[in-house]
Amino acid sequence: MSEADRLANKVAHVMLSREGTGAAWGIQIDEAREGYARISMTVRKDMLNGHAIAHGGMIFALADTAFAYACNSRNVNTVAQQASIAFLAPGREGDRLTAEAAEVAVSGRSGVYAVTVTNQAGEKIAVFQGLSRSTGGAVLAPD
Amino acid sequence: MSEADRLANKVAHVMLSREGTGAAWGIQIDEAREGYARISMTVRKDMLNGHAIAHGGMIFALADTAFAYACNSRNVNTVAQQASIAFLAPGREGDRLTAEAAEVAVSGRSGVYAVTVTNQAGEKIAVFQGLSRSTGGAVLAPD
Amino acid sequence: MSEADRLANKVAHVMLSREGTGAAWGIQIDEAREGYARISMTVRKDMLNGHAIAHGGMIFALADTAFAYACNSRNVNTVAQQASIAFLAPGREGDRLTAEAAEVAVSGRSGVYAVTVTNQAGEKIAVFQGLSRSTGGAVLAPD
Amino acid sequence: MSEADRLANKVAHVMLSREGTGAAWGIQIDEAREGYARISMTVRKDMLNGHAIAHGGMIFALADTAFAYACNSRNVNTVAQQASIAFLAPGREGDRLTAEAAEVAVSGRSGVYAVTVTNQAGEKIAVFQGLSRSTGGAVLAPD
Repeated sequence: MSEADRLANKVAHVMLSREGTGAAWGIQIDEAREGYARISMTVRKDMLNGHAIAHGGMIFALADTAFAYACNSRNVNTVAQQASIAFLAPGREGDRLTAEAAEVAVSGRSGVYAVTVTNQAGEKIAVFQGLSRSTGGAVLAPD
Repeated sequence: MSEADRLANKVAHVMLSREGTGAAWGIQIDEAREGYARISMTVRKDMLNGHAIAHGGMIFALADTAFAYACNSRNVNTVAQQASIAFLAPGREGDRLTAEAAEVAVSGRSGVYAVTVTNQAGEKIAVFQGLSRSTGGAVLAPD
Repeated sequence: MSEADRLANKVAHVMLSREGTGAAWGIQIDEAREGYARISMTVRKDMLNGHAIAHGGMIFALADTAFAYACNSRNVNTVAQQASIAFLAPGREGDRLTAEAAEVAVSGRSGVYAVTVTNQAGEKIAVFQGLSRSTGGAVLAPD
Repeated sequence: MSEADRLANKVAHVMLSREGTGAAWGIQIDEAREGYARISMTVRKDMLNGHAIAHGGMIFALADTAFAYACNSRNVNTVAQQASIAFLAPGREGDRLTAEAAEVAVSGRSGVYAVTVTNQAGEKIAVFQGLSRSTGGAVLAPD
């Protein structure tokens, strides 16, 4: 593992540990490296909408969390400015959803990330595109 | 109140009562009428990200919930196909966030809704645009 | 007309006069004031796609032009960072399309604008949301 | 070349030949296969905005054209419902811009496509995500 990937992995785990949402949603980091994150979450009853399928807000929240780890991976504070999501198939109670975020482009302080959310059968649930902006400063204090 | 608005209000409240997320997030319906919904939610510790501000996923989730009530307001089952959100200012723990969803256009089975999320001071936190598609069938069974 | 509106109107007309696209597309400014622009364009044969309807790129281009005039209206150089568009109905050859751009929110150097494209019958063709960023400096040199 | 790719290539070229915009914008198809299209265009003076850089509308138009060829590649009429674009770097007069569209996911009649626009130096100019919907019927009549 490169130094850059080791740092990215550390940043993602520290971000998760600081979040109220990480524990609330049961987020697990499966892989985090430079410009990339793959995380997963199980759909619970309290994440369902009135049609008994995963609320679009929870699917977005999972994708947005993966996006955050990927765009902060170089240990420079970076925020989401904008995001778009297309919903393709429903998530069901008990489904294990995985969000995989990959860097598409970085230009100056802006970055674009593509995130795909799939279920345990590999079916695509949603596709997300996020625009980030670096605000400067480090996520992690130096050791 | 018109019959159409009365129906919209009833649909929104029934949707909320069926959702796992409505109770989990503390969603309150402030107003629901034909093509329109205004709802609110208080930002809790378990909704914060690693920077101690409201997670973008929760802000989206609030906006998406208002969108769902507005686009189902005519008692025809309607789903979100796509949504875009721009984040403008942070939400803080204890903030009371309001999402106001209004119909911009309907064409055939498609609809576009604009949602604005503001805090208790009236500051705009996020702006959301959602694309819906009617799938047919009623949300509420006839009495 | 307020001083702010007078300036906005002047900025829009100067921007149009500097554009290669303004003349190429036959853009006409119908109204421009602070945070707002309404412009129109006639759909020509060279703007049609293979289905003989207005190319989505031209509908976007019209909306994006109105967005540009609205977000530069305070005479501070401002660029589009991101935009989303939903297509609702086709434009036909000879249609007179109008794009109306209005400011939804401004926060620091970022702004969100909503643009609606309608035809001569008032039918909504497309709905657009744009995210701008001010880069500083004046559009117009002082007199 | 597979039969599917041969068909996709034929569809793209027929679409281009039917478009008013294809000739007007100088669109060239570099590669078209199932679920994929790569096309290019040179930025001309009549494509520039008031800052003497490529108008965002033209960059979108190029991306949207590649999206159209990719989502119609199976010879089923398919339209754009929605698209999002992030602008990363300016295009200049004389730049040769390439738009590469690839299928991300298809679910029922909906599809999501990612398009990247680069210049002759390989610099990313814009990133686009499009949502399509099949309306049925063939683009090309059977021979």
